Amino acid sequence: MKELTVDLGERSYPIYIGEGILQQIGELFAKHGIGKGSPLLIVTDSHVAEHHLGDVVSRLEEAGYTTTSYTVSAGEKSKSLSVLEDVVSAALQAGLDRKSTVVALGGGVVGDLAGFVAASYMRGIRFVQIPTTILAHDSSVGGKVAVNHPLAKNIIGAFHQPELVLYDTATLRTLPDREVKAGLSEMIKHGLIWDAEFTAWLEENAQKLVSLDQEALQYGLYFGCKVKSIVVSQDEKENGLRAILNLGHTIGHALEAVSGYNKLLHGEAISIGMVGAAKLAIRLGHPEHIYTVTKRILQAFGLPVSVPADLDTDAIMNAMMHDKKFSEGNMIYIIPTEIGKVEINKNVSAAWVREVVEQLKQEV
Amino acid sequence: MKELTVDLGERSYPIYIGEGILQQIGELFAKHGIGKGSPLLIVTDSHVAEHHLGDVVSRLEEAGYTTTSYTVSAGEKSKSLSVLEDVVSAALQAGLDRKSTVVALGGGVVGDLAGFVAASYMRGIRFVQIPTTILAHDSSVGGKVAVNHPLAKNIIGAFHQPELVLYDTATLRTLPDREVKAGLSEMIKHGLIWDAEFTAWLEENAQKLVSLDQEALQYGLYFGCKVKSIVVSQDEKENGLRAILNLGHTIGHALEAVSGYNKLLHGEAISIGMVGAAKLAIRLGHPEHIYTVTKRILQAFGLPVSVPADLDTDAIMNAMMHDKKFSEGNMIYIIPTEIGKVEINKNVSAAWVREVVEQLKQEV
Ligand SMILES: NC(=O)c1ccc[n+]([C@@H]2O[C@H](COP(=O)([O-])OP(=O)(O)OC[C@H]3O[C@@H](n4cnc5c(N)ncnc54)[C@H](O)[C@@H]3O)[C@@H](O)[C@H]2O)c1
Ligand SMILES: NC(=O)c1ccc[n+]([C@@H]2O[C@H](COP(=O)([O-])OP(=O)(O)OC[C@H]3O[C@@H](n4cnc5c(N)ncnc54)[C@H](O)[C@@H]3O)[C@@H](O)[C@H]2O)c1
Ligand SMILES: [Zn+2]
Ligand SMILES: [Zn+2]
Repeated sequence: MKELTVDLGERSYPIYIGEGILQQIGELFAKHGIGKGSPLLIVTDSHVAEHHLGDVVSRLEEAGYTTTSYTVSAGEKSKSLSVLEDVVSAALQAGLDRKSTVVALGGGVVGDLAGFVAASYMRGIRFVQIPTTILAHDSSVGGKVAVNHPLAKNIIGAFHQPELVLYDTATLRTLPDREVKAGLSEMIKHGLIWDAEFTAWLEENAQKLVSLDQEALQYGLYFGCKVKSIVVSQDEKENGLRAILNLGHTIGHALEAVSGYNKLLHGEAISIGMVGAAKLAIRLGHPEHIYTVTKRILQAFGLPVSVPADLDTDAIMNAMMHDKKFSEGNMIYIIPTEIGKVEINKNVSAAWVREVVEQLKQEV
Repeated sequence: MKELTVDLGERSYPIYIGEGILQQIGELFAKHGIGKGSPLLIVTDSHVAEHHLGDVVSRLEEAGYTTTSYTVSAGEKSKSLSVLEDVVSAALQAGLDRKSTVVALGGGVVGDLAGFVAASYMRGIRFVQIPTTILAHDSSVGGKVAVNHPLAKNIIGAFHQPELVLYDTATLRTLPDREVKAGLSEMIKHGLIWDAEFTAWLEENAQKLVSLDQEALQYGLYFGCKVKSIVVSQDEKENGLRAILNLGHTIGHALEAVSGYNKLLHGEAISIGMVGAAKLAIRLGHPEHIYTVTKRILQAFGLPVSVPADLDTDAIMNAMMHDKKFSEGNMIYIIPTEIGKVEINKNVSAAWVREVVEQLKQEV
């Protein structure tokens, strides 16, 4: 079992990563101050419930906890105020009080939703994350929790840090292959923004990671969480540095929006976005190998590197203009300056971005 | 103009109280760092909009601010997640960004709703309160913001402190008489829990306060805010002392719930609740005059002191049992030990409370 601390002063918390660690859930909860006197609410989604809920519930009950579970439909649509209201109904019916804990068992959707329930129920109660996707190595670090509004993603939320994160890599075996790869895309991002050596390791271990080799997986998740946690520790409330976590996300979000939030997974969209950012880097005079290496790694993981030809360039550009990072003809972009390093560049011309989007349709 | 600081370290903020101070709204906003580069969203309700919105908007626009207004229906029903979603739509359409400010123009309903919008929009933006009720001298201090859930009041919320509070006592002239008195009930509560001298002053000035004499009103609001702010400063996140602010509220909430949240105003219900708490005090052996004085003051303000005879005692007791302050046959009660002092008593027997509720139906 690997352990790592997200360093946020009073709000610091540990992340445990290992195969089968949910077997120790009772002890780990008790060790981190989750009391048995107040009921727990486990929030999960329909896919995860099928595979993992029974196990978590029975281990917690054996350990002496009182639990209630609430299962939302799988998918982004559950990150809404109306589902939040339903989860709060369940919390009230289960008698959750100020000393209770909300447990998020699932991927980023469940983590964000249940985290915002915990942040706002009685103005804030405890929260534990049990991530079951690879992408969640990203979403479970940093304390950003939120639901969507019909007009904007993640716009209603809070910063609310969990008490602990329990990452049982055995749960990942039931994750669909496409979700595995999409999650690894964020892991690659963590390499590209922060650490050349880790990035090289990722390329070498692409096959192992994709096939969920446990040793590789645990190291990758550990290092990915670590990069995210270093960045977040330096900028808890997102005032500066944290922006580098958006590598590939400006183009990526636009692609998600235009493809209808359904055809491209988030990790796939930012994979394409990271190739775009590398192309912009070259255009800005940074070394050519940034582009070659970025693309080669993503392809080693079977991730997409080209914009689907049927997506309209104008629509993509429009979606980017609505993104908050745009101002007065220039865009704020996270640009790699070498492998493992990025800069926040506020002067990327919209015209160059358009050119790059066009080129990304030809990418092979 | 009176000024007072709510002392919360980094989150400290000023309250300005005075007649006509909205005329200086532009300068006061600028002085407290509300920038002109990002749009403001003014949230108000249908009654307040009719009398005061035009004035606030035109003064802010004159001062160089860009404003958008959103008016909710007057009444407690607007403190809901669905209205929150509507307000967020307005915020998005107006282009509110991280540097924007939400302005709550209204009573406690608007303050709680708009405050929770500010707390959660983009995970937290700035917030200014412009209270227009007397009750809001209570709700605008302390940073508790929330909406209701169909099953429970104020259950979804946050702690989010405003940048400043602008209390223009001229706005109170349009407040219905019954709302004036109900708001004064919380002012009396602030006297009873904290300060015998202020309580005596309140009794002497009852007529002036009820008729909105400006000098008396400003002093009363100032002192009421001050008591609340001292208590809150010592217990920002409601872990202990803040409980004393609940004098009269356990019975009060039950009466509100049973009377359907409509027949009794909150201030009226806690007026009756404070008489109940005084009766319990006597029962616990505290001096008889606590009861006599409490009742005499409330009557001087024309506030109710008896439980409406048609309310069912069982239903009232049941509503209290569902209140979070109840445990194992005993109730946690805020009990006056003399005028201007209270204790948190965890051993008030439910049987005594029932007796007191019965007696309160006979009160004249
Ligand atoms: N809070 C943050 O900092 C942050 C960061 C990145 C992303 N996010 C959010 O995370 C969300 C995406 O997260 P995600 O990719 O984990 O999505 P997700 O939670 O929707 O999971 C993806 C799919 O996999 C299924 N699934 C999850 N675990 C499974 C398992 N072990 N076995 C079988 N099926 C399983 C889910 O039911 C779902 O269908 C987005 O809403 C995004 O906004 C948040
Ligand atoms: N956050 C806190 O700490 C806290 C504390 C106490 C109460 N509250 C909340 O405050 C709310 C009650 O506040 P309230 O009594 O101010 O209620 P309110 O905001 O509903 O106002 C009462 C009525 O007066 C009208 N009104 C307000 N100002 C007016 C004016 N100047 N002229 C004419 N009409 C006016 C309103 O439209 C409404 O009809 C409750 O929801 C309660 O939960 C919050
Ligand atoms: Zn991402
Ligand atoms: Zn009250």
